[in-house]
Amino acid sequence: MTHADNLDLAAVREYLRAFAHDRDWEQFHTPKNLAMALAGEVGELLAVLQWLTAEESSTIMREESKAAAIREELGDILQYVIRLADVLDVDLSSALWDKLHKNETKYPIELARGTAKKYTEF
Amino acid sequence: MTHADNLDLAAVREYLRAFAHDRDWEQFHTPKNLAMALAGEVGELLAVLQWLTAEESSTIMREESKAAAIREELGDILQYVIRLADVLDVDLSSALWDKLHKNETKYPIELARGTAKKYTEF
Amino acid sequence: MTHADNLDLAAVREYLRAFAHDRDWEQFHTPKNLAMALAGEVGELLAVLQWLTAEESSTIMREESKAAAIREELGDILQYVIRLADVLDVDLSSALWDKLHKNETKYPIELARGTAKKYTEF
Amino acid sequence: MTHADNLDLAAVREYLRAFAHDRDWEQFHTPKNLAMALAGEVGELLAVLQWLTAEESSTIMREESKAAAIREELGDILQYVIRLADVLDVDLSSALWDKLHKNETKYPIELARGTAKKYTEF
Repeated sequence: MTHADNLDLAAVREYLRAFAHDRDWEQFHTPKNLAMALAGEVGELLAVLQWLTAEESSTIMREESKAAAIREELGDILQYVIRLADVLDVDLSSALWDKLHKNETKYPIELARGTAKKYTEF
Repeated sequence: MTHADNLDLAAVREYLRAFAHDRDWEQFHTPKNLAMALAGEVGELLAVLQWLTAEESSTIMREESKAAAIREELGDILQYVIRLADVLDVDLSSALWDKLHKNETKYPIELARGTAKKYTEF
Repeated sequence: MTHADNLDLAAVREYLRAFAHDRDWEQFHTPKNLAMALAGEVGELLAVLQWLTAEESSTIMREESKAAAIREELGDILQYVIRLADVLDVDLSSALWDKLHKNETKYPIELARGTAKKYTEF
Repeated sequence: MTHADNLDLAAVREYLRAFAHDRDWEQFHTPKNLAMALAGEVGELLAVLQWLTAEESSTIMREESKAAAIREELGDILQYVIRLADVLDVDLSSALWDKLHKNETKYPIELARGTAKKYTEF
Protein backbone atom coordinates (compact mmCIF):
# COMPACT_ATOMS: atom_id res chain seq x y z
CA MET A 1 0.00 0.00 0.00
CA THR A 2 1.31 3.45 -0.77
CA HIS A 3 0.90 6.03 1.91
CA ALA A 4 0.76 9.79 1.90
CA ASP A 5 4.26 11.19 1.73
CA ASN A 6 3.32 14.43 3.37
CA LEU A 7 1.21 15.50 6.26
CA ASP A 8 -0.34 18.88 5.63
CA LEU A 9 0.33 20.37 9.05
CA ALA A 10 -0.99 23.78 8.12
CA ALA A 11 -4.33 22.32 7.04
CA VAL A 12 -4.66 20.19 10.17
CA ARG A 13 -3.77 23.13 12.40
CA GLU A 14 -6.40 25.27 10.72
CA TYR A 15 -8.97 22.52 10.89
CA LEU A 16 -8.37 21.97 14.60
CA ARG A 17 -8.45 25.70 15.34
CA ALA A 18 -11.79 26.03 13.59
CA PHE A 19 -13.11 22.88 15.25
CA ALA A 20 -12.27 24.25 18.70
CA HIS A 21 -13.46 27.76 17.87
CA ASP A 22 -16.82 26.62 16.50
CA ARG A 23 -17.47 24.68 19.71
CA ASP A 24 -16.11 27.36 22.04
CA TRP A 25 -13.54 24.84 23.21
CA GLU A 26 -10.51 27.13 23.27
CA GLN A 27 -11.19 27.56 27.00
CA PHE A 28 -10.48 23.84 27.51
CA HIS A 29 -7.44 23.63 25.25
CA THR A 30 -4.68 24.60 27.65
CA PRO A 31 -1.39 22.75 27.14
CA LYS A 32 -1.98 20.95 30.42
CA ASN A 33 -5.41 19.70 29.41
CA LEU A 34 -4.31 18.73 25.92
CA ALA A 35 -1.38 16.74 27.31
CA MET A 36 -3.82 14.86 29.54
CA ALA A 37 -6.12 14.20 26.60
CA LEU A 38 -3.16 12.94 24.59
CA ALA A 39 -2.22 10.61 27.44
CA GLY A 40 -5.80 9.37 27.64
CA GLU A 41 -5.75 8.46 23.95
CA VAL A 42 -2.41 6.70 24.32
CA GLY A 43 -3.99 4.76 27.19
CA GLU A 44 -6.70 3.58 24.81
CA LEU A 45 -4.04 2.47 22.34
CA LEU A 46 -2.31 0.49 25.08
CA ALA A 47 -5.61 -1.12 26.01
CA VAL A 48 -5.95 -2.50 22.48
CA LEU A 49 -2.46 -4.03 22.64
CA GLN A 50 -2.03 -4.94 26.31
CA TRP A 51 -2.82 -8.64 26.30
CA LEU A 52 -1.34 -9.44 22.91
CA THR A 53 1.93 -11.24 22.44
CA ALA A 54 4.62 -9.43 20.48
CA GLU A 55 3.74 -11.57 17.47
CA GLU A 56 0.02 -10.90 17.76
CA SER A 57 0.70 -7.17 17.98
CA SER A 58 2.65 -7.41 14.71
CA THR A 59 -0.29 -8.87 12.82
CA ILE A 60 -3.06 -6.92 14.50
CA MET A 61 -3.96 -5.04 11.33
CA ARG A 62 -5.24 -8.27 9.79
CA GLU A 63 -8.17 -8.23 12.21
CA GLU A 64 -10.65 -5.75 10.85
CA SER A 65 -12.15 -4.45 14.10
CA LYS A 66 -8.79 -4.13 15.82
CA ALA A 67 -7.32 -2.45 12.75
CA ALA A 68 -10.10 0.13 12.81
CA ALA A 69 -9.49 0.78 16.50
CA ILE A 70 -5.75 1.20 15.95
CA ARG A 71 -6.26 3.65 13.10
CA GLU A 72 -8.68 5.68 15.20
CA GLU A 73 -6.34 5.82 18.16
CA LEU A 74 -3.42 6.87 15.97
CA GLY A 75 -5.62 9.57 14.47
CA ASP A 76 -6.68 10.83 17.89
CA ILE A 77 -3.13 10.79 19.23
CA LEU A 78 -1.79 12.68 16.24
CA GLN A 79 -4.51 15.30 16.35
CA TYR A 80 -3.67 16.05 19.98
CA VAL A 81 0.05 16.24 19.21
CA ILE A 82 -0.64 18.75 16.45
CA ARG A 83 -3.14 20.77 18.48
CA LEU A 84 -0.81 20.83 21.50
CA ALA A 85 2.11 22.01 19.36
CA ASP A 86 -0.13 24.69 17.91
CA VAL A 87 -1.30 26.15 21.22
CA LEU A 88 2.31 26.07 22.44
CA ASP A 89 3.48 27.67 19.17
CA VAL A 90 5.98 24.87 18.59
CA ASP A 91 7.18 24.13 15.06
CA LEU A 92 6.49 20.41 15.09
CA SER A 93 8.59 19.51 12.09
CA SER A 94 11.71 21.23 13.39
CA ALA A 95 11.11 19.88 16.93
CA LEU A 96 10.98 16.40 15.43
CA TRP A 97 14.11 16.71 13.28
CA ASP A 98 16.06 18.37 16.08
CA LYS A 99 15.24 15.45 18.35
CA LEU A 100 16.07 12.86 15.70
CA HIS A 101 19.50 14.39 15.21
CA LYS A 102 20.04 14.55 18.96
CA ASN A 103 19.20 10.86 19.18
CA GLU A 104 21.96 10.08 16.69
CA THR A 105 24.44 11.50 19.17
CA LYS A 106 22.83 9.77 22.14
CA TYR A 107 22.76 6.42 20.37
CA PRO A 108 25.92 6.02 18.28
CA ILE A 109 25.67 2.96 16.06
CA GLU A 110 28.68 1.20 17.52
CA LEU A 111 27.36 1.44 21.10
CA ALA A 112 23.67 0.94 20.41
CA ARG A 113 23.82 -1.95 17.98
CA GLY A 114 21.68 -4.86 19.04
CA THR A 115 20.99 -3.56 22.53
CA ALA A 116 17.93 -1.92 24.05
CA LYS A 117 20.00 -0.20 26.72
CA LYS A 118 19.23 3.42 27.48
CA TYR A 119 22.00 5.85 26.52
CA THR A 120 22.63 6.47 30.21
CA GLU A 121 23.64 2.82 30.53
CA PHE A 122 26.38 2.82 27.87
CA MET B 1 6.92 32.67 14.10
CA THR B 2 6.16 30.84 10.91
CA HIS B 3 6.11 27.09 11.13
CA ALA B 4 6.63 24.36 8.60
CA ASP B 5 3.41 23.82 6.67
CA ASN B 6 4.25 20.25 5.83
CA LEU B 7 5.67 17.29 7.62
CA ASP B 8 7.66 15.11 5.27
CA LEU B 9 6.32 11.78 6.46
CA ALA B 10 8.17 9.81 3.81
CA ALA B 11 11.50 11.28 4.86
CA VAL B 12 10.85 10.67 8.56
CA ARG B 13 9.72 7.10 7.88
CA GLU B 14 12.89 6.43 5.90
CA TYR B 15 15.06 8.06 8.53
CA LEU B 16 13.53 5.98 11.33
CA ARG B 17 13.79 2.77 9.31
CA ALA B 18 17.47 3.39 8.69
CA PHE B 19 18.03 4.43 12.30
CA ALA B 20 16.52 1.16 13.54
CA HIS B 21 18.21 -0.93 10.87
CA ASP B 22 21.67 0.51 11.51
CA ARG B 23 21.32 -0.35 15.21
CA ASP B 24 19.71 -3.75 14.67
CA TRP B 25 16.70 -2.46 16.57
CA GLU B 26 13.98 -3.88 14.32
CA GLN B 27 13.78 -6.78 16.76
CA PHE B 28 12.59 -4.36 19.49
CA HIS B 29 10.19 -2.37 17.34
CA THR B 30 7.04 -4.42 17.67
CA PRO B 31 3.81 -2.42 17.76
CA LYS B 32 3.39 -3.40 21.40
CA ASN B 33 6.83 -2.14 22.39
CA LEU B 34 6.53 1.05 20.36
CA ALA B 35 3.17 1.82 21.96
CA MET B 36 4.79 1.44 25.39
CA ALA B 37 7.66 3.69 24.36
CA LEU B 38 5.18 6.26 23.11
CA ALA B 39 3.34 6.11 26.43
CA GLY B 40 6.62 6.53 28.28
CA GLU B 41 7.39 9.71 26.35
CA VAL B 42 3.90 11.05 26.99
CA GLY B 43 4.54 10.35 30.67
CA GLU B 44 7.62 12.56 30.48
CA LEU B 45 5.55 15.32 28.88
CA LEU B 46 3.00 15.06 31.70
CA ALA B 47 5.81 15.27 34.24
CA VAL B 48 6.86 18.64 32.82
CA LEU B 49 3.31 19.98 33.13
CA GLN B 50 1.91 18.18 36.17
CA TRP B 51 2.32 20.81 38.90
CA LEU B 52 1.63 23.85 36.73
CA THR B 53 -1.59 25.80 36.82
CA ALA B 54 -3.52 26.06 33.58
CA GLU B 55 -2.14 29.58 33.18
CA GLU B 56 1.44 28.54 33.81
CA SER B 57 1.09 25.75 31.27
CA SER B 58 -0.01 28.34 28.69
CA THR B 59 3.14 30.41 29.11
CA ILE B 60 5.59 27.56 29.61
CA MET B 61 7.43 28.27 26.35
CA ARG B 62 8.72 31.54 27.81
CA GLU B 63 10.97 29.58 30.16
CA GLU B 64 13.92 28.43 28.14
CA SER B 65 14.72 25.16 29.86
CA LYS B 66 11.08 24.07 30.01
CA ALA B 67 10.57 25.09 26.39
CA ALA B 68 13.49 22.90 25.35
CA ALA B 69 12.05 19.98 27.33
CA ILE B 70 8.63 20.42 25.75
CA ARG B 71 10.06 20.53 22.23
CA GLU B 72 12.08 17.39 22.89
CA GLU B 73 9.11 15.49 24.28
CA LEU B 74 6.93 16.50 21.34
CA GLY B 75 9.69 15.35 19.01
CA ASP B 76 9.99 12.01 20.76
CA ILE B 77 6.24 11.48 20.85
CA LEU B 78 5.87 12.28 17.18
CA GLN B 79 8.72 10.02 16.12
CA TYR B 80 7.10 7.08 17.93
CA VAL B 81 3.72 7.84 16.36
CA ILE B 82 5.30 7.83 12.91
CA ARG B 83 7.41 4.72 13.55
CA LEU B 84 4.43 2.87 15.02
CA ALA B 85 2.26 3.75 12.04
CA ASP B 86 5.04 2.56 9.76
CA VAL B 87 5.50 -0.86 11.34
CA LEU B 88 1.71 -1.26 11.36
CA ASP B 89 1.53 -0.10 7.73
CA VAL B 90 -1.01 2.58 8.62
CA ASP B 91 -1.38 5.62 6.41
CA LEU B 92 -1.09 8.24 9.10
CA SER B 93 -2.46 11.14 7.13
CA SER B 94 -5.63 9.31 6.12
CA ALA B 95 -6.03 7.83 9.62
CA LEU B 96 -5.90 11.37 10.97
CA TRP B 97 -8.36 12.91 8.52
CA ASP B 98 -10.76 9.99 8.85
CA LYS B 99 -10.80 10.48 12.61
CA LEU B 100 -11.22 14.24 12.33
CA HIS B 101 -14.25 13.80 10.12
CA LYS B 102 -15.67 11.19 12.46
CA ASN B 103 -15.29 13.64 15.35
CA GLU B 104 -17.41 16.15 13.48
CA THR B 105 -20.28 13.68 13.65
CA LYS B 106 -19.62 12.77 17.26
CA TYR B 107 -19.45 16.39 18.35
CA PRO B 108 -22.02 18.40 16.40
CA ILE B 109 -21.55 22.11 17.00
CA GLU B 110 -24.98 22.70 18.48
CA LEU B 111 -24.56 19.96 21.11
CA ALA B 112 -20.87 20.42 21.87
CA ARG B 113 -20.71 24.20 22.10
CA GLY B 114 -19.17 25.39 25.35
CA THR B 115 -19.24 22.01 27.04
CA ALA B 116 -16.49 19.48 27.71
CA LYS B 117 -18.97 16.60 27.90
CA LYS B 118 -18.06 13.40 26.15
CA TYR B 119 -20.25 12.55 23.16
CA THR B 120 -21.69 9.64 25.13
CA GLU B 121 -23.13 12.16 27.59
CA PHE B 122 -25.12 14.25 25.09
CA MET C 1 -16.47 9.73 56.47
CA THR C 2 -14.21 7.22 58.13
CA HIS C 3 -12.18 5.06 55.84
CA ALA C 4 -10.60 1.68 56.22
CA ASP C 5 -7.32 2.03 58.06
CA ASN C 6 -5.86 -1.09 56.54
CA LEU C 7 -5.74 -2.67 53.16
CA ASP C 8 -5.70 -6.44 53.42
CA LEU C 9 -2.99 -7.05 50.83
CA ALA C 10 -2.89 -10.79 51.48
CA ALA C 11 -6.60 -11.13 50.82
CA VAL C 12 -6.47 -9.04 47.64
CA ARG C 13 -3.46 -10.98 46.37
CA GLU C 14 -5.26 -14.27 46.95
CA TYR C 15 -8.42 -12.97 45.36
CA LEU C 16 -6.58 -11.81 42.25
CA ARG C 17 -4.64 -15.06 41.98
CA ALA C 18 -7.83 -17.08 42.11
CA PHE C 19 -9.55 -14.69 39.71
CA ALA C 20 -6.77 -15.15 37.16
CA HIS C 21 -6.46 -18.88 37.76
CA ASP C 22 -10.18 -19.55 37.40
CA ARG C 23 -10.15 -17.77 34.02
CA ASP C 24 -6.86 -19.25 32.84
CA TRP C 25 -5.51 -15.74 32.64
CA GLU C 26 -2.08 -16.36 34.16
CA GLN C 27 -0.78 -16.64 30.59
CA PHE C 28 -1.70 -12.97 30.01
CA HIS C 29 -0.43 -11.65 33.34
CA THR C 30 3.21 -10.98 32.52
CA PRO C 31 4.70 -7.92 34.22
CA LYS C 32 4.87 -6.22 30.83
CA ASN C 33 1.19 -6.79 30.08
CA LEU C 34 0.07 -5.83 33.57
CA ALA C 35 2.04 -2.59 33.40
CA MET C 36 0.29 -1.78 30.12
CA ALA C 37 -3.09 -2.58 31.66
CA LEU C 38 -2.25 -0.34 34.61
CA ALA C 39 -1.34 2.47 32.21
CA GLY C 40 -4.58 1.96 30.34
CA GLU C 41 -6.58 2.38 33.54
CA VAL C 42 -4.63 5.50 34.47
CA GLY C 43 -5.46 6.81 31.00
CA GLU C 44 -9.15 6.35 31.81
CA LEU C 45 -8.68 8.27 35.05
CA LEU C 46 -7.02 11.12 33.15
CA ALA C 47 -9.91 11.13 30.69
CA VAL C 48 -12.34 11.82 33.55
CA LEU C 49 -10.27 14.76 34.75
CA GLN C 50 -8.73 16.17 31.57
CA TRP C 51 -11.04 19.09 30.81
CA LEU C 52 -11.74 20.08 34.41
CA THR C 53 -10.22 23.11 36.06
CA ALA C 54 -8.16 22.50 39.18
CA GLU C 55 -11.15 23.67 41.24
CA GLU C 56 -13.60 21.41 39.43
CA SER C 57 -11.29 18.45 39.96
CA SER C 58 -11.32 19.18 43.69
CA THR C 59 -15.09 18.93 43.91
CA ILE C 60 -15.62 16.14 41.42
CA MET C 61 -16.86 13.70 44.07
CA ARG C 62 -20.01 15.82 44.53
CA GLU C 63 -21.18 14.72 41.08
CA GLU C 64 -22.57 11.24 41.48
CA SER C 65 -21.73 9.78 38.08
CA LYS C 66 -18.21 11.20 38.05
CA ALA C 67 -17.66 10.04 41.61
CA ALA C 68 -18.62 6.51 40.64
CA ALA C 69 -16.23 6.64 37.68
CA ILE C 70 -13.38 7.90 39.86
CA ARG C 71 -13.93 5.18 42.45
CA GLU C 72 -13.94 2.52 39.73
CA GLU C 73 -10.77 3.79 38.14
CA LEU C 74 -8.99 3.94 41.49
CA GLY C 75 -10.14 0.38 42.16
CA ASP C 76 -8.88 -0.83 38.79
CA ILE C 77 -5.56 0.97 39.15
CA LEU C 78 -4.98 -0.42 42.62
CA GLN C 79 -5.85 -3.97 41.62
CA TYR C 80 -3.26 -3.84 38.84
CA VAL C 81 -0.63 -2.39 41.18
CA ILE C 82 -1.23 -5.25 43.62
CA ARG C 83 -1.36 -7.92 40.94
CA LEU C 84 1.79 -6.60 39.28
CA ALA C 85 3.66 -6.55 42.59
CA ASP C 86 2.50 -10.10 43.20
CA VAL C 87 3.69 -11.55 39.91
CA LEU C 88 7.00 -9.70 40.40
CA ASP C 89 7.21 -10.95 44.00
CA VAL C 90 7.61 -7.40 45.31
CA ASP C 91 6.66 -6.60 48.90
CA LEU C 92 4.45 -3.63 48.15
CA SER C 93 4.36 -2.22 51.66
CA SER C 94 8.12 -2.16 52.03
CA ALA C 95 8.61 -0.86 48.47
CA LEU C 96 6.28 1.99 49.37
CA TRP C 97 7.88 2.90 52.68
CA ASP C 98 11.38 2.64 51.23
CA LYS C 99 10.42 5.09 48.51
CA LEU C 100 8.73 7.46 50.95
CA HIS C 101 11.86 7.61 53.05
CA LYS C 102 14.00 8.12 49.99
CA ASN C 103 11.78 11.05 48.98
CA GLU C 104 12.48 12.70 52.33
CA THR C 105 16.13 12.86 51.35
CA LYS C 106 15.41 13.99 47.82
CA TYR C 107 13.05 16.72 48.99
CA PRO C 108 14.41 18.28 52.19
CA ILE C 109 11.86 20.62 53.72
CA GLU C 110 14.05 23.72 53.53
CA LEU C 111 14.68 23.29 49.79
CA ALA C 112 11.30 21.98 48.73
CA ARG C 113 9.04 24.33 50.64
CA GLY C 114 6.52 26.05 48.44
CA THR C 115 8.09 24.98 45.18
CA ALA C 116 7.15 22.31 42.66
CA LYS C 117 10.70 22.02 41.37
CA LYS C 118 12.08 18.57 40.76
CA TYR C 119 14.89 17.56 43.10
CA THR C 120 17.28 17.69 40.16
CA GLU C 121 16.58 21.42 39.91
CA PHE C 122 17.53 22.38 43.48
CA MET D 1 9.89 -14.38 50.58
CA THR D 2 7.07 -13.47 52.89
CA HIS D 3 5.43 -10.15 52.28
CA ALA D 4 3.49 -7.79 54.46
CA ASP D 5 -0.08 -8.97 54.71
CA ASN D 6 -1.42 -5.54 55.41
CA LEU D 7 -0.86 -2.08 54.11
CA ASP D 8 -1.35 0.49 56.82
CA LEU D 9 -3.37 2.96 54.80
CA ALA D 10 -4.00 5.25 57.75
CA ALA D 11 -0.28 5.58 58.43
CA VAL D 12 0.56 6.24 54.79
CA ARG D 13 -2.23 8.80 54.49
CA GLU D 14 -0.95 10.62 57.58
CA TYR D 15 2.62 10.45 56.37
CA LEU D 16 1.72 11.90 52.98
CA ARG D 17 -0.42 14.64 54.52
CA ALA D 18 2.44 15.70 56.76
CA PHE D 19 4.93 15.43 53.90
CA ALA D 20 2.82 17.76 51.76
CA HIS D 21 2.01 20.09 54.64
CA ASP D 22 5.65 20.47 55.74
CA ARG D 23 6.61 21.48 52.21
CA ASP D 24 3.57 23.68 51.60
CA TRP D 25 2.65 21.39 48.73
CA GLU D 26 -1.08 21.15 49.38
CA GLN D 27 -1.48 23.92 46.78
CA PHE D 28 -0.11 21.53 44.11
CA HIS D 29 -2.02 18.43 45.22
CA THR D 30 -5.25 18.87 43.31
CA PRO D 31 -6.82 15.64 42.03
CA LYS D 32 -5.98 16.72 38.49
CA ASN D 33 -2.31 17.28 39.25
CA LEU D 34 -1.99 14.09 41.29
CA ALA D 35 -3.53 12.07 38.48
CA MET D 36 -0.95 13.52 36.10
CA ALA D 37 1.85 12.72 38.52
CA LEU D 38 0.53 9.18 38.83
CA ALA D 39 0.51 8.86 35.05
CA GLY D 40 4.05 10.19 34.88
CA GLU D 41 5.24 7.51 37.30
CA VAL D 42 3.43 4.80 35.35
CA GLY D 43 5.22 6.13 32.28
CA GLU D 44 8.53 5.54 34.04
CA LEU D 45 7.47 2.00 34.85
CA LEU D 46 6.62 1.40 31.19
CA ALA D 47 10.02 2.75 30.19
CA VAL D 48 11.73 0.08 32.29
CA LEU D 49 9.72 -2.67 30.61
CA GLN D 50 9.16 -1.37 27.09
CA TRP D 51 11.85 -3.21 25.14
CA LEU D 52 11.75 -6.45 27.11
CA THR D 53 10.17 -9.62 25.83
CA ALA D 54 7.38 -11.11 27.91
CA GLU D 55 9.87 -13.63 29.27
CA GLU D 56 12.45 -11.00 30.14
CA SER D 57 9.80 -8.99 31.95
CA SER D 58 8.98 -12.06 34.05
CA THR D 59 12.54 -12.42 35.31
CA ILE D 60 13.37 -8.74 35.61
CA MET D 61 13.69 -8.90 39.41
CA ARG D 62 16.83 -11.03 39.04
CA GLU D 63 18.70 -8.01 37.71
CA GLU D 64 19.59 -5.89 40.68
CA SER D 65 19.48 -2.44 39.11
CA LYS D 66 16.22 -3.12 37.26
CA ALA D 67 14.71 -4.64 40.39
CA ALA D 68 15.51 -1.50 42.34
CA ALA D 69 13.96 0.65 39.62
CA ILE D 70 10.80 -1.47 39.57
CA ARG D 71 10.41 -1.31 43.36
CA GLU D 72 10.84 2.46 43.29
CA GLU D 73 8.29 2.94 40.54
CA LEU D 74 5.77 0.72 42.33
CA GLY D 75 6.36 2.74 45.48
CA ASP D 76 5.85 6.03 43.66
CA ILE D 77 2.75 4.80 41.89
CA LEU D 78 1.20 3.52 45.09
CA GLN D 79 1.92 6.69 47.03
CA TYR D 80 0.13 8.75 44.39
CA VAL D 81 -2.83 6.37 44.39
CA ILE D 82 -3.14 6.73 48.16
CA ARG D 83 -2.62 10.48 48.15
CA LEU D 84 -5.13 10.94 45.33
CA ALA D 85 -7.73 8.84 47.14
CA ASP D 86 -7.12 10.90 50.26
CA VAL D 87 -7.61 14.31 48.66
CA LEU D 88 -10.74 12.95 46.95
CA ASP D 89 -11.93 11.44 50.24
CA VAL D 90 -12.30 8.02 48.63
CA ASP D 91 -12.18 4.90 50.79
CA LEU D 92 -9.58 3.02 48.79
CA SER D 93 -10.20 -0.39 50.29
CA SER D 94 -13.93 -0.32 49.59
CA ALA D 95 -13.39 1.19 46.13
CA LEU D 96 -11.07 -1.72 45.37
CA TRP D 97 -13.36 -4.47 46.65
CA ASP D 98 -16.40 -2.95 44.98
CA LYS D 99 -14.56 -2.99 41.67
CA LEU D 100 -13.29 -6.53 42.15
CA HIS D 101 -16.82 -7.76 42.75
CA LYS D 102 -18.08 -5.83 39.76
CA ASN D 103 -15.40 -7.50 37.62
CA GLU D 104 -16.74 -10.92 38.64
CA THR D 105 -19.99 -10.00 36.97
CA LYS D 106 -18.31 -8.50 33.94
CA TYR D 107 -16.06 -11.50 33.44
CA PRO D 108 -18.00 -14.68 34.28
CA ILE D 109 -15.66 -17.67 34.38
CA GLU D 110 -17.41 -19.58 31.62
CA LEU D 111 -17.18 -16.68 29.15
CA ALA D 112 -13.77 -15.34 30.13
CA ARG D 113 -11.83 -18.56 30.42
CA GLY D 114 -8.69 -18.54 28.33
CA THR D 115 -9.53 -15.40 26.41
CA ALA D 116 -8.25 -11.84 26.73
CA LYS D 117 -11.39 -10.41 25.16
CA LYS D 118 -12.92 -7.35 26.75
CA TYR D 119 -16.32 -7.94 28.35
CA THR D 120 -17.88 -5.80 25.64
CA GLU D 121 -16.77 -8.41 23.10
CA PHE D 122 -18.47 -11.44 24.69
